[in-house]
Parts: sequence; C-alpha cells; structure tokens
Amino acid sequence: MNLVLIDPAELRDGQHVHLEGDRARHLLTVLNVDAGREVRVGLIDGPLGHAAVVAIAEASVTLRCEFEAVVPERPPVDLLLAVPRPKVMRRLWPQIAALGVGRVILTNAERVERAYFDAHVLHEQHWRPLLLDGLQQARDTRVPQVSIHRRFRVLVEDELGDLSDASQRLVADPASPEGIGTAAASQPDGRVLLSVGPEGGWNDFELQLLRSHGFAAIGLGPRTLRSDTACVALLALVHDRLRVPVPTAAAPNV
Amino acid sequence: MNLVLIDPAELRDGQHVHLEGDRARHLLTVLNVDAGREVRVGLIDGPLGHAAVVAIAEASVTLRCEFEAVVPERPPVDLLLAVPRPKVMRRLWPQIAALGVGRVILTNAERVERAYFDAHVLHEQHWRPLLLDGLQQARDTRVPQVSIHRRFRVLVEDELGDLSDASQRLVADPASPEGIGTAAASQPDGRVLLSVGPEGGWNDFELQLLRSHGFAAIGLGPRTLRSDTACVALLALVHDRLRVPVPTAAAPNV
Repeated sequence: MNLVLIDPAELRDGQHVHLEGDRARHLLTVLNVDAGREVRVGLIDGPLGHAAVVAIAEASVTLRCEFEAVVPERPPVDLLLAVPRPKVMRRLWPQIAALGVGRVILTNAERVERAYFDAHVLHEQHWRPLLLDGLQQARDTRVPQVSIHRRFRVLVEDELGDLSDASQRLVADPASPEGIGTAAASQPDGRVLLSVGPEGGWNDFELQLLRSHGFAAIGLGPRTLRSDTACVALLALVHDRLRVPVPTAAAPNV
Repeated sequence: MNLVLIDPAELRDGQHVHLEGDRARHLLTVLNVDAGREVRVGLIDGPLGHAAVVAIAEASVTLRCEFEAVVPERPPVDLLLAVPRPKVMRRLWPQIAALGVGRVILTNAERVERAYFDAHVLHEQHWRPLLLDGLQQARDTRVPQVSIHRRFRVLVEDELGDLSDASQRLVADPASPEGIGTAAASQPDGRVLLSVGPEGGWNDFELQLLRSHGFAAIGLGPRTLRSDTACVALLALVHDRLRVPVPTAAAPNV
C-alpha cells in the first residue's frame, strides 16, 4: 500500500479520518507509524494529499489530512474485456486499477461461459475493494468505472460510443502481425479503448464486428498468453506508447 | 493447454507416449479427444510436433508423435529478478515461461526477506511444473534455465557474464524517465537481460552496481506496480520491442 485511500464520507470537518480495519492494520503493522508520522493519502475519485498521524489506538489510527487542489486525470485507457474465468478476473481487478484504466467494460462473447456472469467476482462489493487495492498500490484515486454487458452486438453497435470517448480503438488479435507501435502511433494523443477477448479468442463474427466499428488489430507475437497475462501485457504496451509516443515518421498512417 | 509437452524419457520407440495424470485428463475432459484426433505436442527442450491419438482408456491416452526437424530458439530475454514474496513468485512462474524467458536469475537484495529463500516455490519440484504449464500455454518447449543467488554483489560482479550473454542490459527503475523504446532501440537485435527489483526497489548501492555493470535504467511511468505486474509488463515491453524494433533514427544512441 503506497497510499491510504479515504472515502469522502469518512472525513470529519473535511480533514480528520478515523481508520480501523485493513488500512489501520497496514499503518500499524507494516509501516509501524507513530504519532506525527506523515503518510500519503488520497480521496476516492478526488485529490491526492498527505496526512499526519494524530492518534493511535490498539487497532485504529486517526489522520489529519491535507489535500491538493487538483484531482488526477482519469487514466487514458479504457478496457473492453470478455469476461474471463472468475479466478482470472479476481487476479485482474487490482492489476487493472494499478496499471490505470478509466473504464472497464465487461462483455459476453461466444467463448465466455454463462456461469461466469454469476460469479461473486462480478459483484461490486467484491470488485470494488480489489480495485481500491490496486489504486493504493499505484498511488491513484480514480476508481475505474465498471459496467457489465450480456449482449455483445448491442454493446458494440449501440452503447460503446457513450461508454468510451476514446479516439483510438484497438483489438488484440493473435493473428495480427501488427505491433502496438504501428497501430498506436497513428494517433498518439487521444484516449485508447483496448479490447481483449476470451480464452480461445473472439470468434470471426465478433472480430469482424469490432473491426467494422473502428478497432485496429494488434498482435502480441506468436505466443498464446492466458487472458490475465495478455491483459496486463497489452495495458502496459498501450500506456508505454501513450507516455512515450513513437515518432510519426516511423509509423505509416492507417 | 495449447500444446502437450512430453519428456524425452517418456517416448517409446521415438514415437509413442502413454499419458496419465494432468495431460491425459486435459485431453479427455477439456479437449474431448477421440482416437484419430490430432493434437499439438512438443518435446521438452526439443522440437514441436503433432500427434495422433491412437488409444484411449478411462484415465490415459496414447499418442503417436511426429516431431519437426528444428528446435525452437531460446527466447531472447533473460530475467534477473529479486526474489519476491512466495505468493507472487508462484503467480509469476507460469507467466514468465509463457511470455518467454531464456534464463531466470533469482537474486537476493537488501529488501528481499531472508525467509523467501526457504519457500517451497523456489524448489525445482515446485517451479518446474509451473514453468511447463506456461510453456504449454504459449506453445513453446524451451524451459527457462533457473539459478538462485544469495550474494547480489558476487552475482553481478563475477557470475552474470557467464549466466547471460545478452548484449543489452536493462534495469527497471521507477525514477527513470526513459521509456523502454529509447533504451532498447539502441541494439535491437541482441538478447536482453532485464532486471526487476524487489517490492520497495533496489537500494542505491544495488542500483549503482547494476548501472556500473552496463544496465541502462528504464521506467514504467509514475505508477508503482506490484512486482509480478511490473515483471509481466516489462517482459511484454521488451518482447514487443525486440519483435518490432523502433527505427534507429528515433532513438539516440546511448
């Protein structure tokens, strides 16, 4: 935990917060804080800041916070993800938040098993703490927005434009010889909507539908990756490219 | 499982293999193979190939294999990794093998807890099946070589040259503003030795020692990642850059 995230509702007089549970335990047993110690804090979906430890009890810590004036930007990447196995999804939630995603759009696909939609890991009370864990790891406050869609075609044809205003859409396709550089460099400044298919991949109809709605195919090379590994790898590549754009001379426009 | 990996010692008359256990179970219950069905196979540290199912029993499958003439190249990336928490290391093994690593060099560092070296997950009987899982996912046969080193300085000063012949050495350093592109593009064709520090990072001495032994610092941006996430992200970036080199005009020589 590199940041203590605080819910605005927990603040008294805009400044003090009394922590119990995981965050208090982390401060007391991992960081071994004493009164007077400074720690990094953040307000959920609000500004970063710092806080002084003003009181300690056996299982609680009281902080006095000061927040910055500005709120961090939403990360410039949205993720359209075919719902993976619950075990994989559980591993992904904190990593998605840590890598930085503005919105997570979970979708059905032919190769997504129906039972995955009933998994606990798709309930907000399950994923929200996992997302907060990832944000506290990465020192961010912006909780990815999450929506779940059972009808892929309706999602792509009618809803996606309202969910993500990304100027660039990419779809991971193992058959594509394009590296992320070529595809992403054509519009290095906008938001990116990255789509990652199920284990086994999108079927032909799904891939065609995405292509016809502006998704450029990118590949990760000849190795087939588990969908959580692929997701982390692709988010890292997109962020790297947005952060350090390739000179446009090197990239033919698509 | 996208490939059935076979130990050369399991082959009878250079061609037939009788499978029980996990691989048989996967063939029977996930792929639902019948007699005559073709499946992809690979010989551990040997060639890829294909096989026909020639006999099925309740919990076993017999395959007749044909292998290609050539053995896949070792992946062009070696990994120098400060030993992470056992739980993180367990998650990493299959992902390392799937992403493609020639050699895994595990090392001590100031911020590595001593107890990590005693973890089961560093015993070959534990990590080898996890590496094979990753290879079967990614359709590769080359098992990463693994060595474990308790003395960081001796490792870097005296042993690293014999362990990895990489022409380029990179060290992940959150303080570095360099993206992977700038650093990696200067020698796009050789092997890369990538080093990833412990949670909390290398200390100043360790980082200086690496820098003075040819490691160029690269950053992943302002977000602090868990070491397994960072490791997957960095391996993906290095592989992407080796696969699709950035034109050298874009990258100042170091």
